[in-house]
Amino acid sequence: MPYLDHAASSPVHPEALRAMWPYLAGGPANPSSRHEAGRTAAAALDWARDQIATALGGRPGEVVLTAGGTEADNLAVKGIALARPRGRRILTSPTEHPAVLESCRALARLAGFTVEMLPVDGAGRVRADDVATALDAGEPAALVTVATASSELGTVQPIREIAAVAAARGVPMHTDAVQAAGQIPVSMPDLGVDALTVAGHKLGAPAGVGALLVRRSVPLEPVLHGGGQQDGRRSGTEDVAGAVGLAVALHLATTGLAERTARLEERRDRLAAAVAARLPGAVLVGDPVRRLPGHLAWLLPGVTSEAVLLRLDERGVQVSSGTACAAGSTEPPEALLACGIDADLARTMVRVSFGAQTSEDELETVADELVDAVHALTGTAGAPASG
Amino acid sequence: MPYLDHAASSPVHPEALRAMWPYLAGGPANPSSRHEAGRTAAAALDWARDQIATALGGRPGEVVLTAGGTEADNLAVKGIALARPRGRRILTSPTEHPAVLESCRALARLAGFTVEMLPVDGAGRVRADDVATALDAGEPAALVTVATASSELGTVQPIREIAAVAAARGVPMHTDAVQAAGQIPVSMPDLGVDALTVAGHKLGAPAGVGALLVRRSVPLEPVLHGGGQQDGRRSGTEDVAGAVGLAVALHLATTGLAERTARLEERRDRLAAAVAARLPGAVLVGDPVRRLPGHLAWLLPGVTSEAVLLRLDERGVQVSSGTACAAGSTEPPEALLACGIDADLARTMVRVSFGAQTSEDELETVADELVDAVHALTGTAGAPASG
Repeated sequence: MPYLDHAASSPVHPEALRAMWPYLAGGPANPSSRHEAGRTAAAALDWARDQIATALGGRPGEVVLTAGGTEADNLAVKGIALARPRGRRILTSPTEHPAVLESCRALARLAGFTVEMLPVDGAGRVRADDVATALDAGEPAALVTVATASSELGTVQPIREIAAVAAARGVPMHTDAVQAAGQIPVSMPDLGVDALTVAGHKLGAPAGVGALLVRRSVPLEPVLHGGGQQDGRRSGTEDVAGAVGLAVALHLATTGLAERTARLEERRDRLAAAVAARLPGAVLVGDPVRRLPGHLAWLLPGVTSEAVLLRLDERGVQVSSGTACAAGSTEPPEALLACGIDADLARTMVRVSFGAQTSEDELETVADELVDAVHALTGTAGAPASG
Repeated sequence: MPYLDHAASSPVHPEALRAMWPYLAGGPANPSSRHEAGRTAAAALDWARDQIATALGGRPGEVVLTAGGTEADNLAVKGIALARPRGRRILTSPTEHPAVLESCRALARLAGFTVEMLPVDGAGRVRADDVATALDAGEPAALVTVATASSELGTVQPIREIAAVAAARGVPMHTDAVQAAGQIPVSMPDLGVDALTVAGHKLGAPAGVGALLVRRSVPLEPVLHGGGQQDGRRSGTEDVAGAVGLAVALHLATTGLAERTARLEERRDRLAAAVAARLPGAVLVGDPVRRLPGHLAWLLPGVTSEAVLLRLDERGVQVSSGTACAAGSTEPPEALLACGIDADLARTMVRVSFGAQTSEDELETVADELVDAVHALTGTAGAPASG
C-alpha cells in the first residue's frame, strides 16, 4: 500500500528505534537524579542534545527538547514575544502551520499583541522587501515568524533574506522548519534565524518529540513552567528515549542530504511531468521550482479532494488534502485561500508527499491511480478504472 | 543495584512496551490522516483514551493526552484559571510539585492572578476547613489545586473533603495525582475533583507521556495552540505509541491495586521499623499513617542528604533527597520548609520510594546501607561499613 503522506507523518527509522530501545526497556531513568541510573540518562541526553545541535548548526545549549513541532512553535512564538521588553507586533504569513498562527492569535487574545499578516503571492512566497516595509512601518515588532517551507504548498521561503532584514532591525526571527528539515539543508547560522522548530515524526523519529533550537541571547518565557529542567526554558522530566530517537533520525536525515535531495527532486519532477501530461487540467500549487523535493500538490478542477482521497484510499493509496491537523475539517486549506485561490477550487487539492524510502514503483502507482481517479470522477476519457 | 527512587521515575512495564511497539515500528501514523494508516492510528488512540478514562473513573472525552505530568499540571492550572470569567485568586499548598507552583507563579507574573498558600501542618497536611475559610474570605477564586500526595513528604491529602468544600462554592478543583496514581486508588468522581494529573513514567509507562483528566463542563484555555487536536484542548499530533503505553501501564497499575497496596504498606512499615530501631535519631517526615504505600523519607540529624546519597550511590544503592527536578540544587526542599522544618535539618532528608517489583531483599539492603552510612558519617557505634 503506497504511503504518500510523509508530510503528515514519516516512517520511524529502524536505527532511531534501535538507539531508543535501551532507554525504554533498560530501567527507569530520570536524568535529574543524582545516582548511577540518573547519570546514565543524563549522559544520553547530553549526547542527544549534542547530535541535534550539530545537525542543525547550533550548540548543545541552544537545544530545547519539546513534545513535538507544535510545542516548539508555541515556545518560539509565545516564549520570544512574551519575554521581549518592548514591541507588541508579530509579523507572520497566512501560509504558516496552525501551531504558529494559533499561538499568534492566542497572544493577541490573551496578551494584547497585534498579529500582522505578511503578503504572499500566488505561490505563497513571502518577499523580504515586504518584511522590511512592514517592520519599518509602525511600532516595534516582537517577532517575525515564517516557515522554511509550507506543508500544504511545498513552497520554500527565502528565509535567509527575511532573517537578514529582521536582524538588521534587531527583531528576533523564528522559522518553523518542520517540513524542511531532512528534505533540504536547514542550519540556524546559515539561515540567520534566532529560533528554529523541528518535529521528530516528520524526519524519522517517533511522534511525541521535537525541538526548538534557539539562540542563548534570545530571552524566552517558558510555555511549561515547573522543575526548571533545560535551564528553566522547558520544565518537565526529559524524554530521554525520544531525544535519542530524534538525534539519530536527524543525523541520518542530514547525512548525505545533497544526493538524497537530488534523487527526490528527480522523482518529484518525473511525477509532476506524468501528471501534467495526463491531467492537463491539474494545476500545481506553490512554487514549481523552489519547493520541497518530496512534495507535490495539485488543484484538480471538477473533482473534490474528498472524493479523490476516498477512492485512492479504497485502492490502497494514501495521500492527503493538506495538513493532517485539519483533516477532519471541511474548510479549505487557509494557505490556499491566502494565495488567492478561491474556496471551491481549494477544496480540490490533493497532496502527495514522500521520502527517500518511497520507491519509483510507488510513485508510478500513485500517478496511475490519481489519473484514473480524476477520470472516473469526472467521467472523462480513459475513465475505466485500471483494476 | 537496588533502585529505590520510583518517585523520580519507575521502571517501564514490559507489557506497556510490547503494546507500544506496533505504533513505533509499524509505519507512520498521524491519527488525523484520512486514510488507512491514519484510521489505524486513530483507533489505537481511541482505545487508549478509553482505557485511561476507565482507569481513572472518567469518560474518554475527558482525557487530554499530554507530554507528561508537568504539561498536564500547566494545562490544569493555567487552562482552568485563564478560562474562568471571574475570580483571580488561586489557592494551593506550599508542598505542591514545582509544575503546579511555578504555573501559579507564572499566572501571577503574567496575568494578574494572586496565589494564596493554604496552611499546612508539620506533616504537610492541608485541612479542608482551612480551604473553606480561605474561599469564604476575599474575592472569588478561580481554582483550588492540591496534590493527592506529595512527592517529598509522602503525605496523602484529604482530597475528597477539600474537593467537596470547593464544589460547594462553585470553584474548580485540580489535583496532581502523579505520585498517587498506581499506589492508591485515584478516581476523578470518587475524589470529586474537576481535573486530575497523571504522568506515565511514575506508573510504568515511559517518560514523555501523561494525561489530564478534566470534566467537559470545565472551560479550558489551551497551553498548546495549533491544529486543534483533542477537541482543541491540546494541539499537536498525538503520540499514539505513548498513549497506548500509558493506557496499558495505567490498567496494570490499577488492577489488583488493593492487594498491591497492602503488600507495599507492609514492606514500608517493616522498613520504617527497622530504621527506627537502628537509627533512633531519624525522624520520619510527612504523615506516618496517611502516606503513600511505597514511600518513606527521613531527616537524619548529623549528616547531609548529599553525603548519604553519595555513599549509597558508590555502594550501588539508588535513593534520593527529594524531587529529582530540583536535584541539582543545594536548596532544601520547599515542602519541608513549609512544614516548619528548619533549612539545615531539611538538608538531611533521604527519601526511599519503591514499587511492587522491589524485592524484600532490596529493602533490607537499603536499610542496612542507610544505617551503615549514617553510622560511618557520624562516627557512631556500629560504624564499620559492612563491605
